[in-house]
Amino acid sequence: MSGRLRLTDSPASGVIMGNNVKTSLAEILSPIDPLMARVDVEILEKMKTGISLIDEGAFHLFKKGGKKIRAALIILCSGLKNAIPDDVVEVAAAAEIVHAATLIHDDIIDGSIYRRGELTVAKKYGNRVAVLVGDYLYTRALEVAVGSDRLDLFPIMVAATRDMVKGELYQIEYSTIDRISKEHYYRIIEMKTARFMAACAKLGGVKAKMSEEESDVLYQFGLNLGFAFQIVDDTLDVVDMAGVTGKDTGNDFINGKITLPFLHLLEVSGPKEREELSALAAAPDENSWSRVRGRLIESGSVDHCIEVSTGYVKKALKYLDFFGTSLHKDIIVNLAGFLLERNY
Amino acid sequence: MSGRLRLTDSPASGVIMGNNVKTSLAEILSPIDPLMARVDVEILEKMKTGISLIDEGAFHLFKKGGKKIRAALIILCSGLKNAIPDDVVEVAAAAEIVHAATLIHDDIIDGSIYRRGELTVAKKYGNRVAVLVGDYLYTRALEVAVGSDRLDLFPIMVAATRDMVKGELYQIEYSTIDRISKEHYYRIIEMKTARFMAACAKLGGVKAKMSEEESDVLYQFGLNLGFAFQIVDDTLDVVDMAGVTGKDTGNDFINGKITLPFLHLLEVSGPKEREELSALAAAPDENSWSRVRGRLIESGSVDHCIEVSTGYVKKALKYLDFFGTSLHKDIIVNLAGFLLERNY
Repeated sequence: MSGRLRLTDSPASGVIMGNNVKTSLAEILSPIDPLMARVDVEILEKMKTGISLIDEGAFHLFKKGGKKIRAALIILCSGLKNAIPDDVVEVAAAAEIVHAATLIHDDIIDGSIYRRGELTVAKKYGNRVAVLVGDYLYTRALEVAVGSDRLDLFPIMVAATRDMVKGELYQIEYSTIDRISKEHYYRIIEMKTARFMAACAKLGGVKAKMSEEESDVLYQFGLNLGFAFQIVDDTLDVVDMAGVTGKDTGNDFINGKITLPFLHLLEVSGPKEREELSALAAAPDENSWSRVRGRLIESGSVDHCIEVSTGYVKKALKYLDFFGTSLHKDIIVNLAGFLLERNY
Repeated sequence: MSGRLRLTDSPASGVIMGNNVKTSLAEILSPIDPLMARVDVEILEKMKTGISLIDEGAFHLFKKGGKKIRAALIILCSGLKNAIPDDVVEVAAAAEIVHAATLIHDDIIDGSIYRRGELTVAKKYGNRVAVLVGDYLYTRALEVAVGSDRLDLFPIMVAATRDMVKGELYQIEYSTIDRISKEHYYRIIEMKTARFMAACAKLGGVKAKMSEEESDVLYQFGLNLGFAFQIVDDTLDVVDMAGVTGKDTGNDFINGKITLPFLHLLEVSGPKEREELSALAAAPDENSWSRVRGRLIESGSVDHCIEVSTGYVKKALKYLDFFGTSLHKDIIVNLAGFLLERNY
């Protein structure tokens, strides 16, 4: 198994992207390059305070850019019927700022050392600054999203942010081996990831003044894409190679967080092996992880997760049938394929 | 010097509250008891998630209640012209939830052990939960404040929250002995405390559908009251007795945070003593604190701070001349007096 999830080796191969496989994110998003560049400018402008601690701490995370999937989703969804509205850039920047805030706080919580190949804000500036910079970005993002005239965006944005945080707390409470179930797993990833992507897709629609029905369809599209995205993420934590993302594998397991690959492995194991695996998960460390990792790959659990996420992407794209053919729709289809096949 | 700031010993004695001195907060606020009780119910209802970790973590701070000055301000200001609008309770609860979020995050940052006489959320549940519960409360508070129909409250609420966080970061950057100046000190307390109280007063006006002019007058009132409130707080950190608030004295100094009493002491000291004091502040610990504390009291710095905060309260109350006599105005005057004379 290499470090890249191979959709092309899975039964779902070719179903989603046909023969037109574009595998580089930059290539896929190139038609909206000018807008994405404006998102970057907007992020920097809106975060600037003149207080060097905030500016450094906040900009630090954006140095390496990140994928900016959420901004791309908002922009692309806003262009599914008519031209992309010019001021969608503000909301797109806001979504990335909220996302950055969650990453900064996550890195305090997980004690992570690297993020996007750089030291985390918490490691570089201390927890004190990381807590406050995260808080600042949360509130600032809500302000930017709403701008001066679109207060109707506020309830969508704030509910999505609230659910994301709720999902993380739910995860702390329910993701350990003694409490986790598949039901809990799906509830966690719905709250912490899927609903925010759903909100992004919907925000695109609302910003483009689409009907309520259209915006709700976009919400469902984003929700299913979000499930796929998080399952891929959790699977990459099993098979990913250090150096590609700057993260090691097994972070979730070692931190006592049980995700879908392990849940599937438990399901396909006999009672004795299940007991052994649970014991390993109850006292997780590098050694138990290297034993578990081997079993996750051999048992087909990784492949299973690829199939499940492929299913979610297919379901997501089904919702887009609601919209006619367009350049932006094509890009979204390619983007969805990329999210499934990515190695970071 | 006892544990209570003695306005009655200061030159400003009697100026503010005349002869009608009510010194218990409960007594002062008793006319709005039913509304304050509804604020408590609203806080608990709006924070409830069914996820025990959030509910326990969030409710923990509210067990001991706190003063709920911000809620009282919103309610009282909303009643300065006509009857208090019934749904002001929501915004009042939201302000207390935001305040709770900042306290929870502050306690992570300061590594404090006790808050309101109980273990802090960070000490009881760990930093991980404290970071996320704080985040949850921030977003939830904004949602509660806005409710379903008053999106115009959002910009006021979010700007106040953003400034408060910004003030804390500014404080980290500028409150150490090598950087602090009086200008920095006042900018810090304006951002981290005064603007939020200003926003509370204004929110009361906006919720009661007062004119823009009236709401802006309330903002100025709250701003000056907020300056006084924070200076009193910083002074109580010098003279407060452990057991009254559950805090020890000298927390600010020992954490390397220079506030007005020390700035005044530097000002009234000769060059040699100033040098000694700066050296003590540069390496603060229990020992240097006990030396500095004695000097702060002897030198009249504590009394100076009481005078300065008295000045701010007088300025604040001047703005209330804009409104006619009323029961609610009387209560606000008493409340302002209490904020000055309090010992916690």
